[in-house]
Amino acid sequence: MIQIYDTTLRDGTQREGISLSCEDKLRIARRLDELGVTFIEGGWPGSNPKDAEFFERARDLPWKHAKIAAFGSTCRVGGGPEDDANIRALLDAGTPACTVVGKTWTLHVTEVLRTTFDENLRIIEKSLAYLRAQGRRVIYDAEHFFDGWRADPGYALETLRAAVRGGAETLVLCDTNGGSLPWQIGETVAKVQAALGHPLGVHCHNDSECAVANSLAAVHAGAVQVQGTVNGYGERCGNANLCSIIPALELKLDVRCLPDGKLSELYEVAHFVAEVANLAPDEHLAYVGRSAFAHKGGIHVAAMRRSATSYQHVDPERVGNTMRVVVSELSGRGNLLSKAEEYGIAPDSIADVGAVLNEIKALEARGFAFEAAEASVAMLMRRQQPGHRAPFELVDFLVNVEHRTGRGIFSEAMVKVRVGEEVLHTAAEGDGPVDALTAALQKALAGHYPQVKELHLSDYKVRILDGQHGTAAVTRVLIDMQKGPRRWSTVGASQNIIEASWIALVDAVEYGLALA
Amino acid sequence: MIQIYDTTLRDGTQREGISLSCEDKLRIARRLDELGVTFIEGGWPGSNPKDAEFFERARDLPWKHAKIAAFGSTCRVGGGPEDDANIRALLDAGTPACTVVGKTWTLHVTEVLRTTFDENLRIIEKSLAYLRAQGRRVIYDAEHFFDGWRADPGYALETLRAAVRGGAETLVLCDTNGGSLPWQIGETVAKVQAALGHPLGVHCHNDSECAVANSLAAVHAGAVQVQGTVNGYGERCGNANLCSIIPALELKLDVRCLPDGKLSELYEVAHFVAEVANLAPDEHLAYVGRSAFAHKGGIHVAAMRRSATSYQHVDPERVGNTMRVVVSELSGRGNLLSKAEEYGIAPDSIADVGAVLNEIKALEARGFAFEAAEASVAMLMRRQQPGHRAPFELVDFLVNVEHRTGRGIFSEAMVKVRVGEEVLHTAAEGDGPVDALTAALQKALAGHYPQVKELHLSDYKVRILDGQHGTAAVTRVLIDMQKGPRRWSTVGASQNIIEASWIALVDAVEYGLALA
Repeated sequence: MIQIYDTTLRDGTQREGISLSCEDKLRIARRLDELGVTFIEGGWPGSNPKDAEFFERARDLPWKHAKIAAFGSTCRVGGGPEDDANIRALLDAGTPACTVVGKTWTLHVTEVLRTTFDENLRIIEKSLAYLRAQGRRVIYDAEHFFDGWRADPGYALETLRAAVRGGAETLVLCDTNGGSLPWQIGETVAKVQAALGHPLGVHCHNDSECAVANSLAAVHAGAVQVQGTVNGYGERCGNANLCSIIPALELKLDVRCLPDGKLSELYEVAHFVAEVANLAPDEHLAYVGRSAFAHKGGIHVAAMRRSATSYQHVDPERVGNTMRVVVSELSGRGNLLSKAEEYGIAPDSIADVGAVLNEIKALEARGFAFEAAEASVAMLMRRQQPGHRAPFELVDFLVNVEHRTGRGIFSEAMVKVRVGEEVLHTAAEGDGPVDALTAALQKALAGHYPQVKELHLSDYKVRILDGQHGTAAVTRVLIDMQKGPRRWSTVGASQNIIEASWIALVDAVEYGLALA
Repeated sequence: MIQIYDTTLRDGTQREGISLSCEDKLRIARRLDELGVTFIEGGWPGSNPKDAEFFERARDLPWKHAKIAAFGSTCRVGGGPEDDANIRALLDAGTPACTVVGKTWTLHVTEVLRTTFDENLRIIEKSLAYLRAQGRRVIYDAEHFFDGWRADPGYALETLRAAVRGGAETLVLCDTNGGSLPWQIGETVAKVQAALGHPLGVHCHNDSECAVANSLAAVHAGAVQVQGTVNGYGERCGNANLCSIIPALELKLDVRCLPDGKLSELYEVAHFVAEVANLAPDEHLAYVGRSAFAHKGGIHVAAMRRSATSYQHVDPERVGNTMRVVVSELSGRGNLLSKAEEYGIAPDSIADVGAVLNEIKALEARGFAFEAAEASVAMLMRRQQPGHRAPFELVDFLVNVEHRTGRGIFSEAMVKVRVGEEVLHTAAEGDGPVDALTAALQKALAGHYPQVKELHLSDYKVRILDGQHGTAAVTRVLIDMQKGPRRWSTVGASQNIIEASWIALVDAVEYGLALA
């Protein structure tokens, strides 16, 4: 059994562009606990108040599988742990486990800590021993371990021995700068294992695009704990990606790291975390990317049906993913019905599931893409429910972008829509044509649907498809709309970018109006 | 010296969402040649007419460093290479090198080829020998090599021996399903090397997120050729990423693979290929991502200034990247002047190079990206030449997109421009707003500049930047324009998509009017 130590909530949030609220962090932690990881590192309580709040709220939750860990550094040079603010914050977090990071590399002892080699050993041992005496499980993160080992292997081992004396249950060797290669990691772990005979872990960064391989090499050489993040999120090039490490451990190295039956939740967990972090899921991620098992059609397909393993390295079902070739032909109906449930639509209320599927296929052939536009899928299904009535109907629109010397550029839109028997005709301006169109539509609907004012266009993506083959290019537009914390995506496609935007906008607004 | 074999133009284009025109492929190939890779695989001439066109146009270009390779499979079971359409297409490509893929895995011989083990050996040997006899350098890609080796190492070696008899100069072991781990690759390469003593290469896929580590493990074990793609583009989870492999080879394994001084162009090449492929560059890629050396400020910065290597695994300058903390340094002057020469602009005719550089920086901060928009750079420089006069000046424009019940959607544009003393005021319609605007501008200019009618808007790419941070999103537009066989790219950016398009359009038209 290998321990999976998740640091998405601490090291993962160092990625530029991620900002998690306390509620976001709790949602992710609960989902990781459900998945069955061994440790969840919640944050660095000494570094910011948001992390302290997380630990306070996490304390009384019913964790099933995971132990919550708080992260911090050794106490200050020259002082003791008992009057160190950082160590105090670790204790106050009230977690069953504490992870303490200390210096391995002589360069950092002299240049960053600016102290002696002995003093560094003292603060490692004392900090750990103090936390251990308060009944905490203690994990030791040896920062820059592999660089330190290259510079001075003897001193690097001394720092680990200090941690063992302090009561560390696991010594985690960190490739902090991410520069190591797999065979270097493997050799070093084996040597440290031979020298100390103490449980080892590994914490890798992806600066050489080797973090997954490095983590696996460490386990291959005897490490029993792997630290990493969901989807490999982390500073610079990211941390070791647990979504690639976990399946490799279970399916290729034949060692367990999750409870029975949990591996197949990995795809969903990866997408859930991306969504909560408000990052587009990377479709090309190993195992959990939407494209990871997407096979092109043609001559391969027949051979693949006979012998699927001959064209894929693992069975995608094992990680909850699907082979894409099969999707459109066989399992689209099931997917669609489970999506209906996700959106609170009773599956048997959809008059004709086949009609929805056919419409999706026809629209995809015209350039729509529904993978990231679930609200458009929900609208297609709702329009098949008996008694469904559109909240408004388009009569006319007109969008104007004008540049006038002396006045600059401005965008205006006119919209004429019908709501019931009434025709509403109004205009608005905006930063660009789509912004103006959105504003005009909201203005037209506000009398009948006051809640339309709460809708907010939060993202707008355009892709031009097939602009190269002499035929007219198709423009695909994805719109993200928001109402408070809720956010949904819709799609439109057309030769005309404004029409594509209008199609996506109508779905986005209709979906938003139906929200409670 | 390790051979770098780039297959971005063949295997890389298998990635969903990439579609390269023949012109795009030639631009990428020329850039790769400039970088100094050993081989550029241009495509599979037997599989589609676009690839055949690439080879036809590539044949007479002055390649500096790279040999162009054409890819194809062994001849058909039961037949000979001399009357095989696929082998014929390989020869017709007229490239110095041909890469032939054949079966290694017994399962594939019986289930996919549906033939005998001996017949498979025969078609490997005969296909290679035939191409060799026609004077081609022949590289052999052993498909599913590592799976085949696990199933039947004896037969796997037999297939390689058949390739050696056929005259293969390099035997490339392919991890086609991407399921292998680094120590497995290393051991296998070492054993094959010991058994055959023939030059080996490696071709990895990233399905286990180990393609880079696997490629490096193969070199560590003796392989002399690495196949991969720029940015790791490729089917499913991608191919081995040359942008991570090349710097690891040169900086960590201390083996050369590019000509002197070329490694520092890697960042630019990675971004250039992403722009041409119209994919957002992944900011978190190792070495070449914009975030790869982005260090957070705070307490680290002071320590990092004293000892930069203590916080980064390699010096970012070596790959043309920069440490983000130290952002705004004045490099780029040399780059700009060599770009001027490329565009036939005498460097000393530019009145103020510093002004051009400053303008580029200011515009990039506003969302422009000049990496793939050389004609916009050329225009910035020309506007600094003494005596330069713009061929026309904008007075007003107006773009209209209208949906009217019963008539559908239509787009019109009005343009008013000044040429010399004359004001031209006209209108046109189009498939969408930008198409209409282009048509109106061409109509307005046709009297003074009849050659404007030969200009043709051949591609139009849009990206929305920064849609998430509460600030207004910026739209970046790239326009490709063509005149006969010549093609050039320009960029515009603005909050308003129509204004962004206009900016790019003006550069594209001005550049086109100045062509002989």
